[in-house]
Amino acid sequence: MTSHVLVGVDLGGTNLRAAVVDLDGGGRVLAEERAPVGDRTPEAVADLVQTLVERVADGAALRGVGIGFAGMLRGWTGVVANAPNFGWRDVDFRGLLRARLGPSVELYNDLNAIAFGETCFGAARGARDVLCVFVGTGIGAGIVTDGKLTIGASHLAGEFGHMKVVPGGRLCGCGARGCIEAYASGRNLATRARQDLATGKASFGSRRDNPADAVREVSLAVQIAGGAERVHAGHLDEAVRAGDAYACALWGEVAPLLGLAIANAVTLLNPSRVVLGGGVWEGAPRLRELVLAAYQEAVNGPSAEAAVIVATALGDTAGVLGAAALIAAGVIS
Amino acid sequence: MTSHVLVGVDLGGTNLRAAVVDLDGGGRVLAEERAPVGDRTPEAVADLVQTLVERVADGAALRGVGIGFAGMLRGWTGVVANAPNFGWRDVDFRGLLRARLGPSVELYNDLNAIAFGETCFGAARGARDVLCVFVGTGIGAGIVTDGKLTIGASHLAGEFGHMKVVPGGRLCGCGARGCIEAYASGRNLATRARQDLATGKASFGSRRDNPADAVREVSLAVQIAGGAERVHAGHLDEAVRAGDAYACALWGEVAPLLGLAIANAVTLLNPSRVVLGGGVWEGAPRLRELVLAAYQEAVNGPSAEAAVIVATALGDTAGVLGAAALIAAGVIS
Repeated sequence: MTSHVLVGVDLGGTNLRAAVVDLDGGGRVLAEERAPVGDRTPEAVADLVQTLVERVADGAALRGVGIGFAGMLRGWTGVVANAPNFGWRDVDFRGLLRARLGPSVELYNDLNAIAFGETCFGAARGARDVLCVFVGTGIGAGIVTDGKLTIGASHLAGEFGHMKVVPGGRLCGCGARGCIEAYASGRNLATRARQDLATGKASFGSRRDNPADAVREVSLAVQIAGGAERVHAGHLDEAVRAGDAYACALWGEVAPLLGLAIANAVTLLNPSRVVLGGGVWEGAPRLRELVLAAYQEAVNGPSAEAAVIVATALGDTAGVLGAAALIAAGVIS
Repeated sequence: MTSHVLVGVDLGGTNLRAAVVDLDGGGRVLAEERAPVGDRTPEAVADLVQTLVERVADGAALRGVGIGFAGMLRGWTGVVANAPNFGWRDVDFRGLLRARLGPSVELYNDLNAIAFGETCFGAARGARDVLCVFVGTGIGAGIVTDGKLTIGASHLAGEFGHMKVVPGGRLCGCGARGCIEAYASGRNLATRARQDLATGKASFGSRRDNPADAVREVSLAVQIAGGAERVHAGHLDEAVRAGDAYACALWGEVAPLLGLAIANAVTLLNPSRVVLGGGVWEGAPRLRELVLAAYQEAVNGPSAEAAVIVATALGDTAGVLGAAALIAAGVIS
């Protein structure tokens, strides 16, 4: 083991992962530790990060610790402005971490870290201009421009999920209306479908004139899930593939909106690689088809020629590799 | 005069401007030459550029010639893929210029050059992350990320005008439907209003039940312009301010779309400065108000906090200063 190690940390809403990484030769995890996030007070989470980082470093000095964090940062202050998964507002989390691990700790947005990991070592390796869009519980993106992570003026570049696609539309968790996240995120799809299906609402059904059909349709997605309260995007996708009218209508509404948002981002940014991933994306093959068709319809033609669309390649490893690569590249938070 | 001069060229659809510039001390034009573009064959335009550059250089050696050009470039080849103003397709214009002026000639998109000029010396001076949107005959943008011009994978970053705002909507000059340019560009506003007004069409009028009102409404915008065939965005804006129902309805449709597109770009990019300009923007104060109100409604709140909105500051000088600054910064085409 080298005497100075580089550590990448992926701190999500439920799990913490810390890894000693080697960025040469394609990026490798040399050692790693994982733990569930228990106590969610800032001090307890900082303690847990310290424990795992020290354990994984195994006595070696820290060259740097890059942390990808699922929350919104306040500009360049190291302060977490808002982290719904932790219930934090205005927490100087970088300060807590530096007090425990030394000055070379930097905090990044988790999707930025994943996007940079996929760019340096994964699906967009070799590309200089990359857009990574992740459709999971929420929706977010990371942008790489000419080989560098685009962070923006106040750490908010890539807030793709809050691009508006339906003016005055559905209420988003951010408090605004019509964000793409309010339509296509896993959380919103599940909430909406569970409500619709539990109440027997067939708001889209083309066969509403026949109540028996409506019941059959509703029961299909619910049957797959084993209960209306369990339905998520994957079940809906399966129901779409089986011809369920409710699920088909939902995909028919949501997929064009997501395709439009991706298309507009590609038109504006002109990336050479578009990396798509996240739990919803990976678990809903029919949704993917529909979104990509809508994307092709809406994207600026010459911009689309340059943009190769690929799936994420690194899985869970992208975050730790990306966070370490960001700190190695001198990106401060 | 120094022995090696830096020249910026702004080659628009109708006029050519070449300037020797000093990039120190805020950016200054030391000498300049202008000429209308007559013969539009590639060779004739290249000859004209050569003539003006040599005249303005006045015998000094060329350190570099940066050219902002109103056309779409093909990747990094120096080839003009498409320049509607000149009727060119797949013209190796950089090759023609290098044959005349030497190897240190680089070709940039005109809006990219203007955006970079405004960032280095004008309305966004000192800002690292900038979005410049120009609403004129067409609609386009330039993006600066962490102080560098964002060019994209194939020279198409900033194709803001072809972001889609109405799926399946109005036909755009690019061949696609629903682009913001098809709604809010000067060319499209004029074409649409002239057709509507010449035919007495009152497609939006809230007072269509009263034909006398409709006639009065139609005649207001036309009267201002001195003929339906002369109506442009400035006349429509004046008619809106006078309460004309047709013009009000048109602005009521177009302004929210433009505000939405700017908002989505700001949400995605997180700039610290948003520079807005162009002939339509400058000549339509009521449209500006409505667009900015719609922008505030649609933009991601925390992203908006970082984004200061300003008007262009350099006028015609932005293009030559920006093109020269790009070549000085080593940006090759």
